Amino acid sequence: MTRVAIIGAAGYTALELIRILLRHPDAEITCIGDQLENQPHVAAIHPSLAGRLDLRLERLSPAEVAARADCVFACLPHGVSSSLVPRLLVGKTRVIDFSADYRLNTTAVFENWYNQKHPDPDRVGKVPYGLPELFRDEIREAPLVANPGCFPTSAVLPLAPLLKAGLIRAEGLILDSKTGVSGAGRTPKLTTHYPECNESFSAYNLGRHRHTPEIEQILSVAAGKPVEVIFSPHLVPMDRGIFTTAYAVPAAEASEETLFDALREFYATEPFVRVVDHLPGTKDSAGTNFCDVTVRVVRDRVVAISCIDNLVKGASGAAVQNFNLMYGYPETTAF
Amino acid sequence: MTRVAIIGAAGYTALELIRILLRHPDAEITCIGDQLENQPHVAAIHPSLAGRLDLRLERLSPAEVAARADCVFACLPHGVSSSLVPRLLVGKTRVIDFSADYRLNTTAVFENWYNQKHPDPDRVGKVPYGLPELFRDEIREAPLVANPGCFPTSAVLPLAPLLKAGLIRAEGLILDSKTGVSGAGRTPKLTTHYPECNESFSAYNLGRHRHTPEIEQILSVAAGKPVEVIFSPHLVPMDRGIFTTAYAVPAAEASEETLFDALREFYATEPFVRVVDHLPGTKDSAGTNFCDVTVRVVRDRVVAISCIDNLVKGASGAAVQNFNLMYGYPETTAF
Amino acid sequence: MTRVAIIGAAGYTALELIRILLRHPDAEITCIGDQLENQPHVAAIHPSLAGRLDLRLERLSPAEVAARADCVFACLPHGVSSSLVPRLLVGKTRVIDFSADYRLNTTAVFENWYNQKHPDPDRVGKVPYGLPELFRDEIREAPLVANPGCFPTSAVLPLAPLLKAGLIRAEGLILDSKTGVSGAGRTPKLTTHYPECNESFSAYNLGRHRHTPEIEQILSVAAGKPVEVIFSPHLVPMDRGIFTTAYAVPAAEASEETLFDALREFYATEPFVRVVDHLPGTKDSAGTNFCDVTVRVVRDRVVAISCIDNLVKGASGAAVQNFNLMYGYPETTAF
Amino acid sequence: MTRVAIIGAAGYTALELIRILLRHPDAEITCIGDQLENQPHVAAIHPSLAGRLDLRLERLSPAEVAARADCVFACLPHGVSSSLVPRLLVGKTRVIDFSADYRLNTTAVFENWYNQKHPDPDRVGKVPYGLPELFRDEIREAPLVANPGCFPTSAVLPLAPLLKAGLIRAEGLILDSKTGVSGAGRTPKLTTHYPECNESFSAYNLGRHRHTPEIEQILSVAAGKPVEVIFSPHLVPMDRGIFTTAYAVPAAEASEETLFDALREFYATEPFVRVVDHLPGTKDSAGTNFCDVTVRVVRDRVVAISCIDNLVKGASGAAVQNFNLMYGYPETTAF
Repeated sequence: MTRVAIIGAAGYTALELIRILLRHPDAEITCIGDQLENQPHVAAIHPSLAGRLDLRLERLSPAEVAARADCVFACLPHGVSSSLVPRLLVGKTRVIDFSADYRLNTTAVFENWYNQKHPDPDRVGKVPYGLPELFRDEIREAPLVANPGCFPTSAVLPLAPLLKAGLIRAEGLILDSKTGVSGAGRTPKLTTHYPECNESFSAYNLGRHRHTPEIEQILSVAAGKPVEVIFSPHLVPMDRGIFTTAYAVPAAEASEETLFDALREFYATEPFVRVVDHLPGTKDSAGTNFCDVTVRVVRDRVVAISCIDNLVKGASGAAVQNFNLMYGYPETTAF
Repeated sequence: MTRVAIIGAAGYTALELIRILLRHPDAEITCIGDQLENQPHVAAIHPSLAGRLDLRLERLSPAEVAARADCVFACLPHGVSSSLVPRLLVGKTRVIDFSADYRLNTTAVFENWYNQKHPDPDRVGKVPYGLPELFRDEIREAPLVANPGCFPTSAVLPLAPLLKAGLIRAEGLILDSKTGVSGAGRTPKLTTHYPECNESFSAYNLGRHRHTPEIEQILSVAAGKPVEVIFSPHLVPMDRGIFTTAYAVPAAEASEETLFDALREFYATEPFVRVVDHLPGTKDSAGTNFCDVTVRVVRDRVVAISCIDNLVKGASGAAVQNFNLMYGYPETTAF
Repeated sequence: MTRVAIIGAAGYTALELIRILLRHPDAEITCIGDQLENQPHVAAIHPSLAGRLDLRLERLSPAEVAARADCVFACLPHGVSSSLVPRLLVGKTRVIDFSADYRLNTTAVFENWYNQKHPDPDRVGKVPYGLPELFRDEIREAPLVANPGCFPTSAVLPLAPLLKAGLIRAEGLILDSKTGVSGAGRTPKLTTHYPECNESFSAYNLGRHRHTPEIEQILSVAAGKPVEVIFSPHLVPMDRGIFTTAYAVPAAEASEETLFDALREFYATEPFVRVVDHLPGTKDSAGTNFCDVTVRVVRDRVVAISCIDNLVKGASGAAVQNFNLMYGYPETTAF
Repeated sequence: MTRVAIIGAAGYTALELIRILLRHPDAEITCIGDQLENQPHVAAIHPSLAGRLDLRLERLSPAEVAARADCVFACLPHGVSSSLVPRLLVGKTRVIDFSADYRLNTTAVFENWYNQKHPDPDRVGKVPYGLPELFRDEIREAPLVANPGCFPTSAVLPLAPLLKAGLIRAEGLILDSKTGVSGAGRTPKLTTHYPECNESFSAYNLGRHRHTPEIEQILSVAAGKPVEVIFSPHLVPMDRGIFTTAYAVPAAEASEETLFDALREFYATEPFVRVVDHLPGTKDSAGTNFCDVTVRVVRDRVVAISCIDNLVKGASGAAVQNFNLMYGYPETTAF
């Protein structure tokens, strides 16, 4: 049995994480840390957990959390997370961090996109990126794992195998992504107020979204050379799901068959990536840790498509997949 | 041409009102009052109005508004409205008030349900209730009209004719109402945050909703004796529409035929109430000023049903209908 | 390990059943029967099952199904089910039937509401109603269980304890129910065509819904005397969930406290009924086997509320709960 | 007063057309033709029209329709339309055709994409494309106008000015379009069954959609040379709206400023195209005849965006705009 703690409890990723962990036979949630004054019961914050988890949110110091858990899931905003992580990594306690703080390889890129000094610069560049499909071995041994962003997961999984195989070019990549509203978090805002975003489709942060450098960094690793992308996020009136339509320039030899072969080979033993022939919808993977990918050749372009549940494979499911790797459980446990 | 002003511009009723008034050949919107510091263009607040109305929100005193308009539509919160209305009613300027302030007949009931002193007690009980189907003559001549609440309109229109005709009893009325989310206003709150209320149906303020005394007051007028109701509001994951299912105890002689006859006779010349045979859906009247009503006898009960668009017949459409009456335009103008 | 078969595979209840059974450590899905000519792979019908269940739909005789399974889940239309069930109940094979065929106690009531002769009249009235909260002991031993209808479950769970305790009267019960669209099944129809029912709330089969006699039968058992209900089903633009608002006349001694006490006592040891203080929303129980219930006293009425996921506690979850009872597994297995 | 007829009455474009025409002071709907046996009242097919239009659907020959109308709106499937149009164009009767039959310039392209012989080949290539922003003069005088497809309108309006001005290249255009479900028509199908497409985002007909040659043809006119596009349609869980994100390679001199200037200049006097600075959402133009366009430069690409209501500017609103031009009414009449 592994003792786990969750810090930052009020959001959707924490809720989803708890739902998944409640199904994990070898994980015990020992504490939920949050800074709310009144330390409410978790079911007062997340009514769907009534009768399922009998814990209060506790105002705890990092040391107290570390003492009560073998693994801490940090569901905190960027900047906040890396100010606490050093104090969580004491003894044998390991951390899976949901923030962007340890995903980027250099503090310069972080500071450029997040407009702040990095609170823990020494660890930057040394933390494995928690995408098992690309970095499984590094994740297994790491004391700290940087859980991927939701858009980057949706962008990397369909493209990395094609870049690695040299079937598409590193230049001219366009990523047109569409996300459900839960991706914007649980804090009420006008843009996510129901009558504003319901029955509407819109773009936001076009060309300026903070997941851009993360996508480029990981795709560059896959390509073995620098990759630049045009990344356009859009908001879909639905709760969950990310659909990414990626446009790439094919290398000479790329046919639909070779592209499919590359995807199928790359993911042959992966439990959570499904290479499908049909055009998938986000509902096919909603509530699951699957990523569905497919590919087409249209005129002179490769069109690669992926679907994930942004809260599962795009966040909390990936975190539990990493947890399973880090603690030696079968990777599909709890799914 | 009648000059109209709108005060309280940021909400959904103001937006809907502007949309309708832009179609009115004899109304000219001369100013939009609001208290925002920066006095933004109306299209900065309501992007759908880009290119349709070239006005800024202005910080104006009541006297300034009154000077610029023959008719003021006050889209303000309860309590605020009645603190301004006395200063708007100067010269020939008339006011259509969207708040609850002048709907109830006594300050005691107001203060009991709204937990505050009434700012303008002298006018209370002297202002016609702006439901033309019941109070057309009073509305025509009034300097000030109390525009009805959305739930009360949905409750009164199917029941008033049956109460008046003595076909249902004044006791034991149950109103099970369901509203789209725009009814909760435009201020972001957790309960109307998209991922909270999307794909969910819930009840709220059960037995405690402030529209209860308003419903009872108007139904009592129709019945000629005191009416008490059980009123249960529910939230539906959709933008617009109210559906009310009303359960009543029939008087001895009530058959489905006599009930339909009473409704059809009562609404024979009404332009905006449609007595329909089928079970309507809210979409049938969405975006229109119609109220669809029907009735059934099930075992020993009368079940009366109504559908309206909460922002149109339930608010801004009713206001323009009142405006047409007050200024002598055909009642259907702008619809 | 218990071998299970599913017949009638194309609908939403079959899909949900498979999802739940895939999490059951002691159930093995050995065959999926359906009458489609081409015997497609299950993932061709339900893309979300890709990579999760590697079976084809097979055109099998009842005898073949019975030979391959210890337990058959029959997800078939009414009338069809009871024409096959007798041939499935061979050897030790047991059946959990999703249709209405064995829920009603007399063929007369069945034939009156379903307009057809009952294909298996001898078993009618001898099959336990698969609601463990009321009939747990009978279910354990039965070769055949009649899985409840979704609306009846939502109606019975909040009311049965109050009727049994004599806190509400058997007369004058009104059930205003609201269901998500998956309750209407997977066959495309105009009424469930997306642009027809999206952004619309409507009533259907008012006073004529076939779940009426089923609700009355089970509530009569609870009350110990005949119960008649006014039952009004409505359609909500969402995938899943049933919300029932029930109005009852209280017995003299019923206060909110005594009502809550009766519910809490009745469900004290039930794993899947949550008596909650707050007004629940359907999202709280979506995707789970929970039923949330609460109660209020409003003026002279008791208002009891329930929320379930129509596909889980209202269908496939209940079926697996029954399966667990019938085969001696902990009742919460797979949830 | 111009007498208008509508043939093909059961779909969403006919309904929207009627709604708009009911607001047109100079159009009188004299007949609605359809081939239904029972000749139902229009409100039996479209309940929202109850009390608004008192006509039955009539089974009429083309000659009968032509005799009763100055202008016929043909809301018929491709292939059907062009088999009737020749018989509608008698006397002074003019036709606005909603089908694809007369949009493409050659029968070869039509037959290649629609897999059938063209029923009226002689008119092909001689019918103006009903997009007033590009072909206003031709539309004014034409006896027959080919009303544009919804996706082509959303693709052409943001790109044509930039191609004409030489600010983007004719090669390498990518159009990632997203449409609400009403675009798929009113015939129930599994893909548009509510529980299938609700809460899901998907792609369909990727690279094979029939609007592709239409888009290329009109953009080629604008560019003055052949244009080829990658066109990816997607389905969004909402009723109405098309959002197109277009990716283009800029010519050397293209800055965001020059791109905006080109759009603003091109649309300076257009009543229905709004060039906006912000990123629009489809809700801003829902229910209106507006097209909102904006543009960004992201790295080495131009990203142009458009939003329309697929049923209004993408179909019936455009048709009434064409009608106004053809009969000499102010172009904004009825909007």
